[in-house]
Formats: sequence, C-alpha cells, structure tokens
Amino acid sequence: MITHYNGFIVMKARVYVSYKSTVLDPQGQTIQSALNGLGHKTITAVRQGKFFDIEIQAGTAKEQAQQEMDQVARDVLANPVMEDYRVEILD
Amino acid sequence: MITHYNGFIVMKARVYVSYKSTVLDPQGQTIQSALNGLGHKTITAVRQGKFFDIEIQAGTAKEQAQQEMDQVARDVLANPVMEDYRVEILD
Repeated sequence: MITHYNGFIVMKARVYVSYKSTVLDPQGQTIQSALNGLGHKTITAVRQGKFFDIEIQAGTAKEQAQQEMDQVARDVLANPVMEDYRVEILD
Repeated sequence: MITHYNGFIVMKARVYVSYKSTVLDPQGQTIQSALNGLGHKTITAVRQGKFFDIEIQAGTAKEQAQQEMDQVARDVLANPVMEDYRVEILD
C-alpha cells in the first residue's frame, strides 16, 4: 500500500510476531476461557500475537526494504528462541 | 484455512486490533526511535497492534462464525473507543 507522508510516497511493511506453536501461550488460554465463560462455547483455542506497521522512506528499493525488515524482525521485534515472525511488504 | 483438531475439522479466524490512527501510540514511537538509533534510518513510523488466532468448533457456519467473531472483537478483544478491529475468517 502506498501512502503519502509529508508529500513523499512511503512504503509500508507489516511484521507479524507470534509464539512458536510449541510454546505455551497463557494469555491466549486466559482469553479462551474468558470467552467460553461469556457463552462463546464454539471457541476451542486462542493464541495472541502482535504486529508492527512500519513506514519506510520513499525511494527505498523493495528488495532492500524486505531485507531490512527481515533484519529488524529477527534482531529487535521478535525473540527467535520463542517466537516466529513473518514480514509482509505492502506496495 | 482448515486444520484438524482431535480428529475434527476446525475453522480458523483472525482478529486484528490496533489503535485508531488518531490515537497516539507511544510504544510504536519508542520502537521507531530505537530502530533509528540502531541505524535503521529509513524507518519513518512504527505502530504496534495485536492479533488473535481463534479456532472455532467444526460444523459452525461461516456467517455464524463471522457474526460471533465480530461480537467477540467488539465486546472483548478491542476497546471501540480507542481501537479499530478487523475480522478475517480463514477457510
């Protein structure tokens, strides 16, 4: 998706971070049992994750943006020991 | 997306929750300045959001699932005063 920022066209990326499926997610389990308790009996599992909407300066090449977002996700946004991440460049 | 759970086919939904664009996101701003400080100068904005991966019992109609997820998102997962939500049924 391309939007304008101070008159320049910016590139947008989204990084999704979630626990690996083998890692317990107590927050998700709490939400699930709360929802079950509120009458939503058809919900059998909930897992929570987070995402980051990132705007990248105009004029950055798509491959360079992809590479930089991968690095940012691996080094800063996710903990690769416990978490998986996925990078999406929206353009 | 359809997966198997205890031998039954389950339906998956994803609910995205993020601050409305008019609401300040200090956590995202902190991440942005940290990334700029680490040398990622091309990043001009970061906004953080969360998502919930929800598994719904087999045999639930898609419209019913969509309606229930909308209700869950509005009433429990998001604060409609400050947050926007989006429901995606993956099948």
